[in-house]
Amino acid sequence: MPPAPSQLAYIPFVSVENMMRFIHHFGVEQVLIELTDAIEADYRRWDVFEKIPRLASHSRDGVIELMPTSDGEAFSFKYVNGHPSNMAKGFQTVAAFGLLARVDTGYPLMLAEMTLLTAFRTAATSAMVARHLAPREAGVMAMIGNGAQAEFQALAMKAVVGVKEVRLYDIDAKATEKTVRNLQGSGLRVVSCSSAQDAIEGAHIITTCTADKAYGTILTDNMVGSGIHINAIGGDCPGKTELHRDILSRADTFVEFEPQTRIEGEIQQMDPSYQVTEFWRVLTGEAEGRRDARQITLFDSVGFATEDFSALRYIHSKLQGTDFFQQIDILADPDEPRDLFGMLQRAA
Amino acid sequence: MPPAPSQLAYIPFVSVENMMRFIHHFGVEQVLIELTDAIEADYRRWDVFEKIPRLASHSRDGVIELMPTSDGEAFSFKYVNGHPSNMAKGFQTVAAFGLLARVDTGYPLMLAEMTLLTAFRTAATSAMVARHLAPREAGVMAMIGNGAQAEFQALAMKAVVGVKEVRLYDIDAKATEKTVRNLQGSGLRVVSCSSAQDAIEGAHIITTCTADKAYGTILTDNMVGSGIHINAIGGDCPGKTELHRDILSRADTFVEFEPQTRIEGEIQQMDPSYQVTEFWRVLTGEAEGRRDARQITLFDSVGFATEDFSALRYIHSKLQGTDFFQQIDILADPDEPRDLFGMLQRAA
Repeated sequence: MPPAPSQLAYIPFVSVENMMRFIHHFGVEQVLIELTDAIEADYRRWDVFEKIPRLASHSRDGVIELMPTSDGEAFSFKYVNGHPSNMAKGFQTVAAFGLLARVDTGYPLMLAEMTLLTAFRTAATSAMVARHLAPREAGVMAMIGNGAQAEFQALAMKAVVGVKEVRLYDIDAKATEKTVRNLQGSGLRVVSCSSAQDAIEGAHIITTCTADKAYGTILTDNMVGSGIHINAIGGDCPGKTELHRDILSRADTFVEFEPQTRIEGEIQQMDPSYQVTEFWRVLTGEAEGRRDARQITLFDSVGFATEDFSALRYIHSKLQGTDFFQQIDILADPDEPRDLFGMLQRAA
Repeated sequence: MPPAPSQLAYIPFVSVENMMRFIHHFGVEQVLIELTDAIEADYRRWDVFEKIPRLASHSRDGVIELMPTSDGEAFSFKYVNGHPSNMAKGFQTVAAFGLLARVDTGYPLMLAEMTLLTAFRTAATSAMVARHLAPREAGVMAMIGNGAQAEFQALAMKAVVGVKEVRLYDIDAKATEKTVRNLQGSGLRVVSCSSAQDAIEGAHIITTCTADKAYGTILTDNMVGSGIHINAIGGDCPGKTELHRDILSRADTFVEFEPQTRIEGEIQQMDPSYQVTEFWRVLTGEAEGRRDARQITLFDSVGFATEDFSALRYIHSKLQGTDFFQQIDILADPDEPRDLFGMLQRAA
């Protein structure tokens, strides 16, 4: 046996199993609330983050992306795939993991699964935006598209915004049944609807979250009344949109990071002169959020690296003193830094 | 306890300890030889690789990089830092890990430490180039800079090129002592030298591998005689070079991927019109390698993502049937892909 590696060699790894234990220990809604606050705190210091375009490797079947960012003290990246054809093969459409590292030494601090964590941070980001932009007393949310993200969105809107009723619709009734079943006992009133039109009846918030990689039109203009907040999370890559452009023309649109959303979001349909507001400016008071009760606000969400950064830092901040991680020996740490070969030799 | 995750949830992880066990099982020189062949095989099919510029996050103390590539079937990336100030703090200047994934599903195939593996692939790449460009019967190598990479370079040149003598010099005599000690019993004749001038006496190959992030001049023009092959691996980021430009003017320079080397390599000192040859073109016969015995050839090595790809694929190809890895549960794998929340719920 080689000599045991030093403490520097180890980093905590949060597996899927440990992420689930973490979430149940603190509570699903409590994690969503704290994550929303963590993401908002980082949005309020937007300027300190290095905004690096995501690095995408496209193939016939999908895309593999690396999404890095840094606040000057910590660096994070997420590895995430997007393969619409995976579902038919029994794989997740989106699977992810992430890393947090120290900027001063470049050494990793934590590796974590991020398939679950991404669902949490996406829902928390939607809730963060909705609590600032949705109409007052937004108690009813329509949810069009009842896939893997649906319950997380519903519970974040309940916990953070105070939504009491979710109205579900999916072209696949099985997806709606699954979501109804999973939300039993959540405290939400859950209504299964037979059409998108039916689902948005009386809704203050409309969340669209469908998965097909094609220019879709989940919502048409005549379906959207005044005063609504639209939380559009499914249109998130080139060629994938969910809203008719006439809705965009009537709405005030808020985005995460404009250069990225122009390429990936709903607004890829619009002329470059179409005006949008980066949401962090609402938080810092540099831009107006919702002006009046008749305005349609639209969050054109594509997911941004700072949200993953916030989520990883949040998990890391709560790990100490718990056993929700295992130590993995990922860093070669010779006693004398220049003696990498000696370390190898002594392990023989 | 939550139900055990399915096989899809697991990927093999090769820790530092297991990488060392792997290397000793197959043998240091044998791994260097096989890795050289694996890297060369991929260089011969250069066109199929997606050449993505590395993604660098610079800070006061160093840089954190993500180096991705893909051959259309597999995708890989390496996380690597470069922090010259780390050595004084007892950390490695360079620490790395990497991931191999399937392009068709986007699912990870293997996670591995790459601090050791990078030292191996860097040495194997140097040896691959030297076996094509060095003068015939190159038996003597000067090694200027005796840090963490030195022994790997020496052994790769021995195993692949047939070098019999290494002549060591470092401004820090302790580094040279360490390298002499580690190469005892390797079968190499090891000569400790008191100056760079002394080290290059009679050498057919000169390897420069110093670590300072500054425009350095390890070699000046009058030191380099005709017929030499220079293996310059230390000048590998903006602001870091080792050779005087007059040497470059006399040499025929070979690079990995020109757009990257123009920014990071020795040739950052030169006018953009300075001509270089991408090394893969020598392998495919599209460009000339060494023409005659008096020519100075220079490999301006900065490290390229395909070399990491080849190294990860090589390790992965030999894992099956061994116990040089542990399985880690990094992928959420619900029974029904859309039922991510149900998986979480059932783990409660």
